[in-house]
Amino acid sequence: MFVLGIDPGLSTTGYGLIAAHGLRLEAVAAGAIRTSPAKEAAERLAELFADLEALLAEYHPDEMALEQVFVNRNLLTATAVGRAVGVTLLAGGRAGIPVFEYTPSAVKMAVTGSGNAAKDRVQALVARRLRLTAAPRPADAADALAVALCHLQSAGLRRAAAGAGR
Amino acid sequence: MFVLGIDPGLSTTGYGLIAAHGLRLEAVAAGAIRTSPAKEAAERLAELFADLEALLAEYHPDEMALEQVFVNRNLLTATAVGRAVGVTLLAGGRAGIPVFEYTPSAVKMAVTGSGNAAKDRVQALVARRLRLTAAPRPADAADALAVALCHLQSAGLRRAAAGAGR
Repeated sequence: MFVLGIDPGLSTTGYGLIAAHGLRLEAVAAGAIRTSPAKEAAERLAELFADLEALLAEYHPDEMALEQVFVNRNLLTATAVGRAVGVTLLAGGRAGIPVFEYTPSAVKMAVTGSGNAAKDRVQALVARRLRLTAAPRPADAADALAVALCHLQSAGLRRAAAGAGR
Repeated sequence: MFVLGIDPGLSTTGYGLIAAHGLRLEAVAAGAIRTSPAKEAAERLAELFADLEALLAEYHPDEMALEQVFVNRNLLTATAVGRAVGVTLLAGGRAGIPVFEYTPSAVKMAVTGSGNAAKDRVQALVARRLRLTAAPRPADAADALAVALCHLQSAGLRRAAAGAGR
């Protein structure tokens, strides 16, 4: 399975692609999509969407996983992120691949075994699981790889459960 | 000027097109885009986006105006609407037309003279301003026409202010 993980945002959207060859995981690509703060929201969303479509067209992932954003802190930030999430889901929907969402604590739990792990700890373990010499930069890219890891682990558990049910 | 007003939502997005011929306003079309509640968010957003693109391609409005949604009540509803707004802004951005946003109270103020007007009152005045025998149904369509009216009024005021400044 080949998964695109996304850490969504209007200013910066992290992405990370992981291919699972049986139990062996390979980080295929990771990075961040940035939009121009000087532009209007509609133009920035169009930039983000074009870059996501290019990513999907280049790599053809089987599934997409994104970190769910909660409206908790700044209302303006929350609104901006919600819009970016809408455009990200749309890109997945138009590519015809299933899109899964995970809460931040589910991602931390999957990677570190604790839903309250510090960001540094998550990133260090992402690097270790993927046999990278250091956590990818920027942090959004590492966070996106963490979401992809979380999804691969959940998908594996789902398949195991389905198998056990037979 | 030809304006597309939008009252955004994931389940139902109202739209209303108004052409301004000098001071005379003409309601060209109004209706609602609905998405299938049984489908996943990504698919629903893809449906909404496709319908918005079809609307923009058919009517070629000069500008788009949408009602700003505030995260005030149900968190799940707010999240769903934020995503729909993102996709709506994207459709405007991709069509290359300016997109304006207005708060609910600005829309009520523009149509009725009061920022706290009841929904019925707004809809009755929308019908009167557009010389319609009744408020368009569903209510989302009438709300979308109200946003378009608000934008035409604001745009008129901006032009008048610019003229006065010369």
